[in-house]
Amino acid sequence: MTDPLTLNIGLCGFGTVGQGVWKHLSANRAELESRLGVKLNLARVAVRDRKKPRTVKAPAARLTDDPLAIANDPSIDIVCELMGGTTIARQVTLAALRHGKIVVSANKALICEHGPEIIAAAQKHGGHFFFEASVAGGIPIIKALREGLVANRFPRIYGILNGTCNYILTQMEDQDAPYADVLAEAKRLGYAEADESLDVDGWDTAHKASVLAWLAHGVWIKTDQMIVEGISRITPADFKNATTLGFGIKLLAIITRDFAKNELCVRVHPTLLPEGNVIANVSGVFNAISVTGDVVGTTLYSGRGAGQDATASAVISDIADASSLLKHGKGAHLIGEATEIRSSGCRLAPPESIRSRYYLRLTVKDQPGVLARVASVMARQHVSIASVIQSPAETSGAASLVLTTHESNERAMRATLKQLRALSSVLDDPLLLRIGDFEG
Amino acid sequence: MTDPLTLNIGLCGFGTVGQGVWKHLSANRAELESRLGVKLNLARVAVRDRKKPRTVKAPAARLTDDPLAIANDPSIDIVCELMGGTTIARQVTLAALRHGKIVVSANKALICEHGPEIIAAAQKHGGHFFFEASVAGGIPIIKALREGLVANRFPRIYGILNGTCNYILTQMEDQDAPYADVLAEAKRLGYAEADESLDVDGWDTAHKASVLAWLAHGVWIKTDQMIVEGISRITPADFKNATTLGFGIKLLAIITRDFAKNELCVRVHPTLLPEGNVIANVSGVFNAISVTGDVVGTTLYSGRGAGQDATASAVISDIADASSLLKHGKGAHLIGEATEIRSSGCRLAPPESIRSRYYLRLTVKDQPGVLARVASVMARQHVSIASVIQSPAETSGAASLVLTTHESNERAMRATLKQLRALSSVLDDPLLLRIGDFEG
Repeated sequence: MTDPLTLNIGLCGFGTVGQGVWKHLSANRAELESRLGVKLNLARVAVRDRKKPRTVKAPAARLTDDPLAIANDPSIDIVCELMGGTTIARQVTLAALRHGKIVVSANKALICEHGPEIIAAAQKHGGHFFFEASVAGGIPIIKALREGLVANRFPRIYGILNGTCNYILTQMEDQDAPYADVLAEAKRLGYAEADESLDVDGWDTAHKASVLAWLAHGVWIKTDQMIVEGISRITPADFKNATTLGFGIKLLAIITRDFAKNELCVRVHPTLLPEGNVIANVSGVFNAISVTGDVVGTTLYSGRGAGQDATASAVISDIADASSLLKHGKGAHLIGEATEIRSSGCRLAPPESIRSRYYLRLTVKDQPGVLARVASVMARQHVSIASVIQSPAETSGAASLVLTTHESNERAMRATLKQLRALSSVLDDPLLLRIGDFEG
Repeated sequence: MTDPLTLNIGLCGFGTVGQGVWKHLSANRAELESRLGVKLNLARVAVRDRKKPRTVKAPAARLTDDPLAIANDPSIDIVCELMGGTTIARQVTLAALRHGKIVVSANKALICEHGPEIIAAAQKHGGHFFFEASVAGGIPIIKALREGLVANRFPRIYGILNGTCNYILTQMEDQDAPYADVLAEAKRLGYAEADESLDVDGWDTAHKASVLAWLAHGVWIKTDQMIVEGISRITPADFKNATTLGFGIKLLAIITRDFAKNELCVRVHPTLLPEGNVIANVSGVFNAISVTGDVVGTTLYSGRGAGQDATASAVISDIADASSLLKHGKGAHLIGEATEIRSSGCRLAPPESIRSRYYLRLTVKDQPGVLARVASVMARQHVSIASVIQSPAETSGAASLVLTTHESNERAMRATLKQLRALSSVLDDPLLLRIGDFEG
């Protein structure tokens, strides 16, 4: 018997996720090593402050405050980039890949912004880049898309990818509470960051959508090529209206591809989902993703989308895949790494191709003729009204007008919104929500 | 540039699934080959009758009526066993593995009955055995358990694994229709086999539970070591009672492990699930599996559990994994193949360790004192009654008595059932259902 190969792992970042990886890898080491046939050595850990007290303690001798030293250390086989950010994280990731190492990343912002550069560096220098933890926490959605569903093309992928937003929306609905109050409470409980913008304005979801779109379609879509709208303008009244109409409201990433037209659309926005849709019933910090493949049909995945333990589960599964690869020769090509072929020259869907029903909430002057003026604006854009709910607004002299439309498209709705804003009887910026007519 | 490696694939069985694999592999060949970096050649196909007309046609020169010839053909790299059955299928599987080939299987009955022999043959001769298609059709649950959730131990896995039963139960509930009528209709529509016993009596679900239990816990559990109960005794009245009590009824496989006691329990039975549970709302032919890992928490997977396309998706993903392995040296050990370590000497949970609340439906004589006699039998076994619903039975002079219990255990309930059967006022064999108090 020869001694098993020892793999040296470097953790760059030792916050919530890094400590989770240390904790669970240490706890399950014997079983993991036996199943993988290698020794896993948590050799070095880069921290910002070596003196900071931590719940999970790594031996002082393994700590460094220089993550690049880990990336450049020839003895390190696997570099886990768990720092976040896109500056030092990018340097560390690229340095490690240029040495032909394997990088395990939870950093969706980095992948979204620098994905092509990272993948090119991995391919050029024989490194590999793993990122199961970057989307939907512990749910193995990257592996499902890349390997388990490799036989499929994906006309539609959609889901809840940000637990903070889903927590806020769930609380608003359950407690009939305004956005600002729920956000403040979420910050107090640690469910929202001090600067909430990344989550509530949809950017975090958009980063994750970019990762999924690349895996599924072989194209890098940046956030400025998507529709990205957040949840901050949603009110308790919108939840009441949605309920009346038979819907829930969820912040969704929606990735659709029309293979006939070869058009791809990636968007992030609050969406009215039919009450019976499983994802409409996923509440709190949970994530859920619906994946429709042309062979398998629609499959669904849900679980905790964030947090120390769920994210550590995903990072450790990547370390396991990396170990398997290192054991058998790093030249090994992973299933689905050659993702570019999936693009086959597809183009971004133009606004007129992005079709759905819409929900439109206007605050209008409470006087006769307003509905007629609104309706005639919509008629000019060939937007057909399906239902109208009028109710008193909070301001006196104003009314709330909620309209749903039959199927229309983004071009028509943008023109409609522009003209509605110009009406003197429309008092506030209209709120436009999309209706997601997804059967499952 | 060297020519890419060509892998020869043999399909043993060319029914629904075999034709699905041929169809989708042919349709997506260019993309798959590009992503895998190999050529995939569907070299040989074993059929029972070479003359039989088929929707999907393979060239006559590739057909054989001898599946063992494919298993023994030195030019074949990957053998897909899609025949079903456990006699010839076993011979084919073992022959191929003894030649060091990779076998891709959809055959849960074979794995359940001959798993240890198959895995031993693969290990001894350097072959590999893949079986993603054996459980839950196109849902990549095998890959999730083996690779994506490799960091986890699994205190609980449960779910709907048989689409036929779920279709029948859904129809019974939605249409208030008796079991026999719905079964007849399901046969007419092709959703149930002519001999329905494998499905409705729970055996197919039990085979799949055995596969999942092995993956998660490294132990082979045969069906005679499980509780296996089917759905044929459930009536529309049970659905009404369940609804009154706030439950749906699903046929579930439930695999629980108590790591403190080191006890494992695998069971298959109709289960009352709280209405809010996602799996209680999975209807028709869909499958759904809830996996609770000690690191990741609870994750959920759902999709079509059977059918030509969903199953082909799973078989092709195994062919892709097999290709990757063959390209890089078949000696490569898969993550999680060394599953035995997961057992760590666990034993089967004894009946008193298998705890739940229970639902008990009795047909009793419609006369005073019956409830008192039933209640005293239960009290003797320390089974505490939580609720009682009495209603007229279909037979005159009889009443239906539905009881739910507080938490009890299988030993106490078996003794209770035995004594209830002995009461002259109890007219029929009591129906016992378990209540699944699963939060998600």
